Amino acid sequence: MTNSPVPTQGILTGISVGPGDPELITLKGLGLLKTAPVVAFPAGVGGKPGIAEQIVAGWLHPDAIKLALSFPYVRDEETLTRAWELAAEEVWQILENGRDVAFVCEGDVSFYSTFTYLAQTLQKKHPEAIVETVPGVCSPMAAVAALGVPLTIRDQKLAVIPALYNVIELESALNWADVVVLMKVSSVYQQVWEILKQKNLLDRSYVVERATLPTQTIYKGLGDRPLIQLSYFSLMIIKVINN
Amino acid sequence: MTNSPVPTQGILTGISVGPGDPELITLKGLGLLKTAPVVAFPAGVGGKPGIAEQIVAGWLHPDAIKLALSFPYVRDEETLTRAWELAAEEVWQILENGRDVAFVCEGDVSFYSTFTYLAQTLQKKHPEAIVETVPGVCSPMAAVAALGVPLTIRDQKLAVIPALYNVIELESALNWADVVVLMKVSSVYQQVWEILKQKNLLDRSYVVERATLPTQTIYKGLGDRPLIQLSYFSLMIIKVINN
Repeated sequence: MTNSPVPTQGILTGISVGPGDPELITLKGLGLLKTAPVVAFPAGVGGKPGIAEQIVAGWLHPDAIKLALSFPYVRDEETLTRAWELAAEEVWQILENGRDVAFVCEGDVSFYSTFTYLAQTLQKKHPEAIVETVPGVCSPMAAVAALGVPLTIRDQKLAVIPALYNVIELESALNWADVVVLMKVSSVYQQVWEILKQKNLLDRSYVVERATLPTQTIYKGLGDRPLIQLSYFSLMIIKVINN
Repeated sequence: MTNSPVPTQGILTGISVGPGDPELITLKGLGLLKTAPVVAFPAGVGGKPGIAEQIVAGWLHPDAIKLALSFPYVRDEETLTRAWELAAEEVWQILENGRDVAFVCEGDVSFYSTFTYLAQTLQKKHPEAIVETVPGVCSPMAAVAALGVPLTIRDQKLAVIPALYNVIELESALNWADVVVLMKVSSVYQQVWEILKQKNLLDRSYVVERATLPTQTIYKGLGDRPLIQLSYFSLMIIKVINN
């Protein structure tokens, strides 16, 4: 009887690939990406490549295996949980066989990222799984660099709201913070505009769409823009305190 | 009479070099850094090299001119303004002569960074100055990557407080946000610990010192740590909502 050697378990690494410009990945992230035998990413919608996949396309080793994982864009908990479980099992089978998996995510993998759900599901089902992350450039930093304004200075307090389900949330943020970031502003822009008008903050508000991509669009001052058709990847920065 | 050619004005670029690990600079930042004729940075204290200078030391072109700019660690407005004006003039003389200046800063140049004061002073004195920035990895992202926890997920609201001058500030942040980051926690750690104890949040609080540097230290759960001697570059993450 011969014993086949048990392969050393692979590592799942969440790699932050930054906001869009492929040059905004870190050296550390790129080094891991170029040597990863398997590169996973959230599958795109409607047959199109996903955002993270597009960002890293030029960096991948020609022999790397690409693994598109399906994470449906829905809010139903059961559907989501099932999708994460399926994805975690797919990844686990590769790790178990001794191969590393690099999961790439736009922005930073710890900041409102799909990676967290995958990592948490994997570690729940397989507590022995080894998970690491490489930090990266998050979208608010990219947006202010594009605008040419600082995000925060001195003792300014910052509030970040990922999505707005209730305008009261925005009012409390404007009361508390000196700078407010609204991450996904497209669906609530009109309501937000009304509040900013009442509070006389339109001149100190900015919108950045697709920061650092060739299609980047910037809106500085929103006084004459009660309506803007914005894409999903738009964020707003409100300087409650001027500087 | 001959006209000497007027040199094309140089560009001041603020380059985010990330939290400490030199590999956490972006490709874009590194590319600009390696070709910059002049690399400026905040001067270190007591003859030691400054943090940003240490981070990029291994990346600099051997012929690059290093320019240490003095920004005193004081709160006196007049002293600070004078220092920024002097630094801005030093930089302007180089730009005027047609040479680019890369100013390197730890973390992200738009996030509580010395770069903002330099850039704003320069643009006030010389409105024609051209200033650009390259975003980077900010310390909260690096800290959570080191901890192995996400910073924020789903609809969690994030509050960032740069420095705590008043404990009331912390209480209002804990009431408003789901995740709170205290950027410079060392001088107020003991007061913060008392508040977290009252609110039963010590088990959900983390401290990271010098994230991503070889001397990085992590404290997960603070229940038995009413006192920690922390260095200046320490931050705290409080998960008000568990996940």
